[in-house]
Amino acid sequence: MQRLLASAKRGVYPVNPTVSEVWGIATYGSVVDIPSSIDLAIIAVPASQVSLVFQECVQKGVKAAVIISGGFAETGGQGHKLETELIKIARQGGIRFMGPNSMGHADTLSQLSTLAWTENITPGPVALISQSGNLGHRIIRSGASSGIGFSKFISTGNEADLHLEDYLEYLAQDENTKIITAYIEGLREGRRFFQLAKETTVSKPIIVIKAGGTKGSAKAVRSHTGTLAGSEAVYVAAFRQAGVIRVDDDDELCDTVIALLTQPLPRNNRIGILTIGGGPGVVAAEACEREGLEIAPLASSTMKKLDACLPPRWSHGNPVDMVGLSMAESPATFSALWALMEDKNIDAILLQAPVGFDTSRLSSILNTEEVTAFRNAEERNLSMVTERVREYMKPVLMVQIDAKQATDPEMSSFLRRQGIPVYPNPRRAARVLHHLAWYRHYLDAALR
Amino acid sequence: MQRLLASAKRGVYPVNPTVSEVWGIATYGSVVDIPSSIDLAIIAVPASQVSLVFQECVQKGVKAAVIISGGFAETGGQGHKLETELIKIARQGGIRFMGPNSMGHADTLSQLSTLAWTENITPGPVALISQSGNLGHRIIRSGASSGIGFSKFISTGNEADLHLEDYLEYLAQDENTKIITAYIEGLREGRRFFQLAKETTVSKPIIVIKAGGTKGSAKAVRSHTGTLAGSEAVYVAAFRQAGVIRVDDDDELCDTVIALLTQPLPRNNRIGILTIGGGPGVVAAEACEREGLEIAPLASSTMKKLDACLPPRWSHGNPVDMVGLSMAESPATFSALWALMEDKNIDAILLQAPVGFDTSRLSSILNTEEVTAFRNAEERNLSMVTERVREYMKPVLMVQIDAKQATDPEMSSFLRRQGIPVYPNPRRAARVLHHLAWYRHYLDAALR
Repeated sequence: MQRLLASAKRGVYPVNPTVSEVWGIATYGSVVDIPSSIDLAIIAVPASQVSLVFQECVQKGVKAAVIISGGFAETGGQGHKLETELIKIARQGGIRFMGPNSMGHADTLSQLSTLAWTENITPGPVALISQSGNLGHRIIRSGASSGIGFSKFISTGNEADLHLEDYLEYLAQDENTKIITAYIEGLREGRRFFQLAKETTVSKPIIVIKAGGTKGSAKAVRSHTGTLAGSEAVYVAAFRQAGVIRVDDDDELCDTVIALLTQPLPRNNRIGILTIGGGPGVVAAEACEREGLEIAPLASSTMKKLDACLPPRWSHGNPVDMVGLSMAESPATFSALWALMEDKNIDAILLQAPVGFDTSRLSSILNTEEVTAFRNAEERNLSMVTERVREYMKPVLMVQIDAKQATDPEMSSFLRRQGIPVYPNPRRAARVLHHLAWYRHYLDAALR
Repeated sequence: MQRLLASAKRGVYPVNPTVSEVWGIATYGSVVDIPSSIDLAIIAVPASQVSLVFQECVQKGVKAAVIISGGFAETGGQGHKLETELIKIARQGGIRFMGPNSMGHADTLSQLSTLAWTENITPGPVALISQSGNLGHRIIRSGASSGIGFSKFISTGNEADLHLEDYLEYLAQDENTKIITAYIEGLREGRRFFQLAKETTVSKPIIVIKAGGTKGSAKAVRSHTGTLAGSEAVYVAAFRQAGVIRVDDDDELCDTVIALLTQPLPRNNRIGILTIGGGPGVVAAEACEREGLEIAPLASSTMKKLDACLPPRWSHGNPVDMVGLSMAESPATFSALWALMEDKNIDAILLQAPVGFDTSRLSSILNTEEVTAFRNAEERNLSMVTERVREYMKPVLMVQIDAKQATDPEMSSFLRRQGIPVYPNPRRAARVLHHLAWYRHYLDAALR
């Protein structure tokens, strides 16, 4: 609110019957006292007073409102009655509204935010519709730490008037939104959602968290937003038929978004694993196979190329374990990577090797100039990864060798700029590859 | 090696036929030239020369060796022959050895490390036996960042002589080891492993990552250490019967270890969820139920207690959503937590609330003195959590509300000192609660 008021050029009119100014801006006693016409009303008064204020908005000719106030259908009994009253006023007065019990919304393009958050949302191509303000907040924050920017965020609240489906319809056509994400507890217009989704996913991915699929969580959904979580089996089938990518939590959502933003979709599900160390290779292979991916056999031409660039003890199979390759030898990693990218048996690559590393570790074996030269060479090679990903249309996902790899902020930001996604473990990368391969498979069938 | 040589008081004798000194310490041309008797030989010469050096060790009367050198059974053909030769020399010479193809080992009590790593391993009560040096390294690093200390680390290598089962037998009796962890690709003495495990887990938890359970990963196991991954179904059943906790990756291993080190085992699987925000509560409930945990109904006495301490709009059920509770009202969180801990229907608690927070965020609503007072009160309450966990013997696992919560190093270290484990999302906490409840259930049956 403070932020909204500060943007005075926008024409913000605080209304409060008891105080005469808010953060230095004069208030009005009632909506009807405001001298200019009003585009949007933001209502955050106690539930019992919302109807009155809302009626004043109608009287003023306001056509849109965000109702932050809680204490409606989500509380049952009297709250239901109050909410029905709001809908009646809206229908009669020709006003559409978000909420009640919404946390607000944000549009990073017009820089309008009705949220009470103190932090900025980084602008970007991802929209989020959330049936929980708190979980939406969590996703936005997780996204920020993964480098994801957002176009719009909508906390739908109780959806007394505008439904999740309305926002979806809007975002499907919004040019500034390239990916639509949602946290869903229950759909009020299931059939419309899946029809819209089916039309949208052929050109714009939709990624959802659908909660309430178990007994206790479904009960929690009812007490949260008063909605029915619905049959888990029906949702599973409908998401699949509509090309909607379903994820389990905010981490998986952000992991998938980052890959969709930076990588092409793999032609199929055959994975090449380039790894340092046999154990990490085994674990990565298992993670991929548990996600329904295949560990592709290498073409004989690839074997030859790898023989030429790797130490003789390399694993001679997929996963490609480069064995005792030291950090200083890491250029060989790139030669091996090019070989895998050229292999027709391989659709996507999981790269679990000491590249993009904390170069400070090299200082014990190399002098300062050598470290700089090493780093420059590595950055050149990493830029080439991005080029070749486009050339071969094969995604490359990096997996951190260990926790330390994440702590070099300079390299992390370089990788981010290059559009090379880095995952903390092979399980998370494998899950993303599963989603990418599934979505490609869906699109191939849908667009045939 | 550098570290080993630096600890000269230990009597370290570098042997090298071509150079006369290493890091300022004079070398010997052969093992037999060393003037004193030798407790342990560390062998890191090319595979073709290991036999010769090993024979010199026998001649010198050495009784134990660590063979770092690779190029043995893991490479097939000729390597197999070389490894058989090593075993023959060892049997005839009465020498036992770790490896070959081992990354070395570390004993943090005696501060002896044969590892080539540059970083220290923090001492502590957890032992790790790993059939992959690289993956072991990854686990040790993940552990370090979670605050886990280690007693011993063993990279078993090819297990030509000493098997994983030998290390397990030792660690089962080691007083400095309270929890045994292992990365397993295949067991050479399966029957012995499970017998030992069964005897051990009644007093000391064993947590394992068992890899190679899928086709491609089993193949990768063969090319990594030359072992057979074995039947997944047999392993699953045998781990269960022996009370071994099986985890998927290093994150889950560390998550579980931290809980076992700090929390009691829950009597049963009924979980109380204390949450801020309905959506996060729904997601947490679903995560628990997907792990086979129950979302317990609240006792009527608990409902009354919660009515007394929470805002009237709280969810009136489990998950206990405190709804719009602000950070400044967070003391109410603790009153609610005590109520849940006293509830006989609840065996364990998942706490997903704004406590242990970055207090800098409070500075916009409170002055400096108030922030300090708030923080002190919160620290007192958090200390009481630890006391009551002991009193009621009910584990309390915290879940981060968002990524920001993890970034307050002062509070993180306070929580760590208090022994309150914090997980990045409800899924990971639920998985740990599943393991704790399962292990308690196992112990109850085993000790009956």
